[in-house]
Amino acid sequence: MRPSNFSAGPAAIPVSVLEQARDELLDYKGTGMSLMEISHRSKPFLELLDHVRATLIELVKIPDTHDILFMQGGAHFLFSAIPLNLLGDKKKADYLVTGNWSGRAAEEAKKYCEVNIVCKPTEYNTIPEPETWKLSEDAAYVYYCDNETVKGTEFTYVPEVGDKPLVVDMSSNFLSRPIDVSKYGVIFACAQKNFGMAGLTIAIVRKDLLGKQRPDTPMLLDFGLLSREKSIFNTPTTYAIYIAGLIFDWMKEQGGLSYFDELSKKKSKLIYDFIEESNGFYICPVVPEYRSRMNVRINLQKEEDVPEWVSMASKRGLLNLKGHRSVGGLRASIYNAVTYEDCEKLVAFMKEYMELKREN
Amino acid sequence: MRPSNFSAGPAAIPVSVLEQARDELLDYKGTGMSLMEISHRSKPFLELLDHVRATLIELVKIPDTHDILFMQGGAHFLFSAIPLNLLGDKKKADYLVTGNWSGRAAEEAKKYCEVNIVCKPTEYNTIPEPETWKLSEDAAYVYYCDNETVKGTEFTYVPEVGDKPLVVDMSSNFLSRPIDVSKYGVIFACAQKNFGMAGLTIAIVRKDLLGKQRPDTPMLLDFGLLSREKSIFNTPTTYAIYIAGLIFDWMKEQGGLSYFDELSKKKSKLIYDFIEESNGFYICPVVPEYRSRMNVRINLQKEEDVPEWVSMASKRGLLNLKGHRSVGGLRASIYNAVTYEDCEKLVAFMKEYMELKREN
Repeated sequence: MRPSNFSAGPAAIPVSVLEQARDELLDYKGTGMSLMEISHRSKPFLELLDHVRATLIELVKIPDTHDILFMQGGAHFLFSAIPLNLLGDKKKADYLVTGNWSGRAAEEAKKYCEVNIVCKPTEYNTIPEPETWKLSEDAAYVYYCDNETVKGTEFTYVPEVGDKPLVVDMSSNFLSRPIDVSKYGVIFACAQKNFGMAGLTIAIVRKDLLGKQRPDTPMLLDFGLLSREKSIFNTPTTYAIYIAGLIFDWMKEQGGLSYFDELSKKKSKLIYDFIEESNGFYICPVVPEYRSRMNVRINLQKEEDVPEWVSMASKRGLLNLKGHRSVGGLRASIYNAVTYEDCEKLVAFMKEYMELKREN
Repeated sequence: MRPSNFSAGPAAIPVSVLEQARDELLDYKGTGMSLMEISHRSKPFLELLDHVRATLIELVKIPDTHDILFMQGGAHFLFSAIPLNLLGDKKKADYLVTGNWSGRAAEEAKKYCEVNIVCKPTEYNTIPEPETWKLSEDAAYVYYCDNETVKGTEFTYVPEVGDKPLVVDMSSNFLSRPIDVSKYGVIFACAQKNFGMAGLTIAIVRKDLLGKQRPDTPMLLDFGLLSREKSIFNTPTTYAIYIAGLIFDWMKEQGGLSYFDELSKKKSKLIYDFIEESNGFYICPVVPEYRSRMNVRINLQKEEDVPEWVSMASKRGLLNLKGHRSVGGLRASIYNAVTYEDCEKLVAFMKEYMELKREN
């Protein structure tokens, strides 16, 4: 039996997807070649790309007003691409800083414009209420990160920012619940959390925002160019697109975004509820309202017990539960490919360890 | 039997590498997880990265003066990264334009500086002699492309450019012959020709050139940052690095760069010799001296026969031989993973087709 993989990213991939990838690795659909070995301009790959795009449109219900770009480089490339493409003749951008990733995006944007920090909690264990936000009049766009992987916080609503384009990094919760695409200027997400392997980033861009890039924007960060060339201006990361496509197919079969929305609530509730029941043996440092459905932070009463806990969990096939090095503790990343049963096993071990310690 | 895959890229991968990837796809070295599913900061991946780096150093004999960067985005990202990192306080760069890729690199550099075109043949079927080059006094660096995939030309020597850093795009002939790294400021190559799947680009950068990037260089194009963070500032394209590592291991077993140098000469000679023997039925439009060992251009006397030729070849398991859409004709890309036997089969069919046509 495969272990339960709670990695924050690169992260668990559905076993049926891995099995199909394995079975097709030397011969993609009777071509006699691996998908890795064929041109991005070949018929089999172009058909695949069309299929992947269509499935994503269907899953997310992406309207005609928005285009899908298959990019590389992870969210970090988008941290640069967003100001380069969206500033236009404006000199300022609004950033909601609620954790490591929105913080890093804001730092990167400072290379290109004045950055107005709309909000920045001192503890990063919550998301400041909209009444406290300081939006600016003359920002080119408003940026936020929907789910902070390290801090374990997640938005429960779409920020209201008036008529400015809203930009969201959904790297760690993309495809985990329905998205009202019409509310966004740009939605982007790297693949290695909820849709496959590192190297692929998908950006969903409102078409009227295309073509406004700074003249010195590096080619592959230019949204307009990628859109015109349908994401094959150069060689895209073909194999990662293939894996993403298999995952989109799998998601559709399972029941689409509503299904994963329900499942993610159920999975995270199971763990958060047990933390609350533990009478302080386990602690979640995040305020209840903004606890992430994707990255569950779990502190032990005694931080020094973490290595023992992680080691014992590992022996029971519960892997990659150590917290991020910057915050310590434990973290269970429970993206779409992590099953409810995986979470039940985790809670069973949390209970076992707690009882063991209380006996001593 | 697998077909012979002459794709220009993404291109053939050694079958033993694909088999190992398949066998390990669901369980990388007993971890119970796919390599795609584990963190870039996990022990198994860091060990892999160390191994891949060490093997590449051994294969290419990379001296301590140079650092290896595992980047994303293909050669196109480097087209932007080169001027962003190397211009320093200079305002000009020298570009040898000998085909599509050096041409595109030169165009991209114009976003950042004055570009001096050192040479530019009218026909692109040759490489202009050094006596005709117009190097400038005040260029920050000199750039060229060692092998032009579309035009089918390849340098037979390292350009002498004095004390300016020499930058080379080796995307389509990297690892096909020994390299004197000491002569270069930067060597870069995307993976999808000679070392695996699209999404990975390796840059070998002389250490004294690090840290001179423009202040507004996007994070992931910043050589200095990537070097300091040992290529894991963010999530690298872990699976492509894994495949590259398997190919480096395979290359070492086969006999390293000298072996592939000999083999590439032998393979390309077989095809070029047959073209010459065909009395004009087949024509290579490239001057003999600069014919590529990697991308063999083959024109038919009658261009209108190309579709029939390609279709018949395909039925014999000889795939992806259509020439680039910009130049027509045929093209056999014979990177390291294409065997001598594949080339023999190609020549046998070239002969068969010629005889068939001559009979009619």
